Amino acid sequence: MTPEQTIVACAVREWTMNTERARALFTGLDTARLSAEVAPGRNRLVYLWGHLIAVHDAMLPLLGFGPRRHPELDEAFLNSGDRAVEHLPSAEELTRLWDEVDGALQAGFRSLSAAEWVQKHTAVSDEGFVVNPLRNRLAVLLNRTSHMAYHLGQARLAL
Amino acid sequence: MTPEQTIVACAVREWTMNTERARALFTGLDTARLSAEVAPGRNRLVYLWGHLIAVHDAMLPLLGFGPRRHPELDEAFLNSGDRAVEHLPSAEELTRLWDEVDGALQAGFRSLSAAEWVQKHTAVSDEGFVVNPLRNRLAVLLNRTSHMAYHLGQARLAL
Repeated sequence: MTPEQTIVACAVREWTMNTERARALFTGLDTARLSAEVAPGRNRLVYLWGHLIAVHDAMLPLLGFGPRRHPELDEAFLNSGDRAVEHLPSAEELTRLWDEVDGALQAGFRSLSAAEWVQKHTAVSDEGFVVNPLRNRLAVLLNRTSHMAYHLGQARLAL
Repeated sequence: MTPEQTIVACAVREWTMNTERARALFTGLDTARLSAEVAPGRNRLVYLWGHLIAVHDAMLPLLGFGPRRHPELDEAFLNSGDRAVEHLPSAEELTRLWDEVDGALQAGFRSLSAAEWVQKHTAVSDEGFVVNPLRNRLAVLLNRTSHMAYHLGQARLAL
């Protein structure tokens, strides 16, 4: 591997380790346990899980892997706080959505060369990218890895 | 910048963004507010802050930046759970320790070339590194970034 391939592999591995932790944490919880709050009056596990799926789904167009697969998640899990939307997907449905989005992202990751990882993501203009070449695909991956870890730390408190 | 320099810069920026969030969150809290629990019966803010400082201090030898500066933190913040050690550093002392360790790490980061980032960290043997070249300095940085974000998500709940 070249140095840049090694570095990219490290970043994808850190992402994958966090997705594996998330999957292990959330799947297998039934609807009742998914209703547990991470702290009194704070987000429920079901909200954090749906939120992660929605944020990860939005990475697909951002990284140039194709259109959103589940934009319908945004109303309950991105644009609203927990409890604003009454009907949420079941535990089984969330597991299915998680695996679908995670699989699409992993396929996308595998398709990229190291040079493509440092190309701009789709939410930055050509001019903006000239000013700040760190607005690239890899920065999105690293940022969303931190985001996932942030909410995993919270979710762990409800178990 | 070469692609590998850009990728390293992205990783260091994600680390730095998280350290800035941590500093903004913890500094300015007095001893009373640092005693807040992230959830009933769970870790207090003071423990999470000291824990992050101890983990970051341990990165110095791991990345080859020199010896530990504050191994005395381990008893209260690494080897024990919260409340096992009665006397903890004051808020002012923790801020001073945070800044010292953070400064030493940032100086170390700046000293490394991209090629040095993919060299093995000091806790892996030459043979182990041949088997798994992802056990390098950059993997340590990415892993500790996730670790910090994990606890930041928890700390945020106490504010």
